[in-house]
Amino acid sequence: MIEPMRIALLGFGSVGRAFSQLLHHKRKAFPFRIVGIHTARQGTVIDDRGLDRTPVFGPKAESLDAFLEAAKPEVLVEITTLNPATGEPAASHIRAAFRHGAHVVTANKGPIANCFAELHELAQQAGLEFRFESTVMDGAPIFNLYRYTLPGVRLTGFTGVLNSTCKLVVEAMREGLSFEDGVRRAQELGIAEADPSYDTEGWDSAAKAAALANVLMDARIRPSEIDTKGIGRLTTSRVLELKEKHKIVQLVARARRSVSDGKVKIRVRAEVLEETDILASVHGTSNLLLFHTDLMGTIGTVSLHPTPSQTAYGLFSDIVDIARTI
Amino acid sequence: MIEPMRIALLGFGSVGRAFSQLLHHKRKAFPFRIVGIHTARQGTVIDDRGLDRTPVFGPKAESLDAFLEAAKPEVLVEITTLNPATGEPAASHIRAAFRHGAHVVTANKGPIANCFAELHELAQQAGLEFRFESTVMDGAPIFNLYRYTLPGVRLTGFTGVLNSTCKLVVEAMREGLSFEDGVRRAQELGIAEADPSYDTEGWDSAAKAAALANVLMDARIRPSEIDTKGIGRLTTSRVLELKEKHKIVQLVARARRSVSDGKVKIRVRAEVLEETDILASVHGTSNLLLFHTDLMGTIGTVSLHPTPSQTAYGLFSDIVDIARTI
Repeated sequence: MIEPMRIALLGFGSVGRAFSQLLHHKRKAFPFRIVGIHTARQGTVIDDRGLDRTPVFGPKAESLDAFLEAAKPEVLVEITTLNPATGEPAASHIRAAFRHGAHVVTANKGPIANCFAELHELAQQAGLEFRFESTVMDGAPIFNLYRYTLPGVRLTGFTGVLNSTCKLVVEAMREGLSFEDGVRRAQELGIAEADPSYDTEGWDSAAKAAALANVLMDARIRPSEIDTKGIGRLTTSRVLELKEKHKIVQLVARARRSVSDGKVKIRVRAEVLEETDILASVHGTSNLLLFHTDLMGTIGTVSLHPTPSQTAYGLFSDIVDIARTI
Repeated sequence: MIEPMRIALLGFGSVGRAFSQLLHHKRKAFPFRIVGIHTARQGTVIDDRGLDRTPVFGPKAESLDAFLEAAKPEVLVEITTLNPATGEPAASHIRAAFRHGAHVVTANKGPIANCFAELHELAQQAGLEFRFESTVMDGAPIFNLYRYTLPGVRLTGFTGVLNSTCKLVVEAMREGLSFEDGVRRAQELGIAEADPSYDTEGWDSAAKAAALANVLMDARIRPSEIDTKGIGRLTTSRVLELKEKHKIVQLVARARRSVSDGKVKIRVRAEVLEETDILASVHGTSNLLLFHTDLMGTIGTVSLHPTPSQTAYGLFSDIVDIARTI
């Protein structure tokens, strides 16, 4: 049996709506109740009996503290719009939730990439859970895979193809379109970050790699410390020349623990790959992450064409896991 | 803290030796002890204090019952040589272990493919655990992935490239060699079954697909009921003709739950794929399994170049999981 849980949402965009739908769909087996939603633009709504799928927002609560005080959630789901480069304001939201005694689930990679060790310690001190499955690969089991299915395994490194915008841009160029056409396509699909150079220059991948390395390898690294070079200087003629040779450019993040000093080295690079390489086999929004391990060789997770529903599922799976853990 | 466990092995080939090495390597964090090994050819050895990595076998115990009676294991690790078409004698060994009050871990797919429902029920009636992570994809988390990281998810189907011999045969043919050359190569690597037509005619894939469908979709199907056609009629000239067009043949197992009657339909087929297809991107002993789900879209697990050490790790992870569960 799963414990009932009182849940508050911070942010209510496409992922928030998909999450609310999912909870409604699964309400019989998983007795989770959304008791409040606080947003920057739509306002605030609180209902202790649980909100339905089309909540009617009232005026915005005075502050996050006031919202948490009133809604008294057991779990705060942090899905605000992010400044991915700093992790703020999401990191501050997470600290506030811990102060109010709430477990936290977030889909924001920024806090994990920038200050995981601090937030993890805050959670531990408060006796609270902190989960973030949806921060990398949209809800596909990555952190939970490592936590629950690989006992005794040590990660020696990982290799990931984690940024959708770059794949869409390269694919557009392979059709003879321009770099800008590709970026526009990613924007139309709602996939590119507000500033698309964050994707194409490799910083999104660096943030995801930092999140993975911080959580799974205790790397204590920030995205800005990662050796990163994106696809920004790629031209359509170069891409077509490679295509002629059955090669493709992918933005690849590679991490490995150095044998000499034990530190985790990470590199994000536009790599030229054979089209038949498994790293080249994920297209569009699909992602692939390979774990290099001491006992289980190289194993990986692939997620094909995820949508906001999969990010919402990652949040849901985190809450189920908290309900089972506490 | 992990509970100490008394373990007995049934069979001691390459996987058994790798497993014994692994337990030795991990003995500080995981206090598991091999108290007996029973084999058909090498004989039997029992030592309550725990065996070292190079056990000295004595005469073969009179029977499995006599061995289990004397060794009194908490977990029996079933890794005998299998008749994969029937699941025997492994299934009988597993029943015996349950009668003696031992949990069971096996790397033998036969019993899962042929009589999972019965064995699962026997385990439940006896209040014992029954695990088999290593039966499909050599220890990569498949069953545990579903069990622990995908709460609330329903499998609508799966697609797998699960047989190594077929990949090696097709790869040999792509080099201009014959079908028989490819089979010989797989045999030299110790990968092909004793009767290689079991691999090339698709029965190994059918058994793995049945195991997956029985455990994860409650399909109650036997491998012999699966619509199976292997690579046996493939010629080198056809393979080279396809290679010219950047296509490749892979043996693919596909399962889906029928919307009309709710039954699980499985098909194993030599499929012609684009070389850039993700299903074509696993070579040699590498494997790929995609889960099609209701909530998490299509996600998959890939295992690159596994060895008997990875199968041994799957057994180990099952025992850790039992120690945590009971």
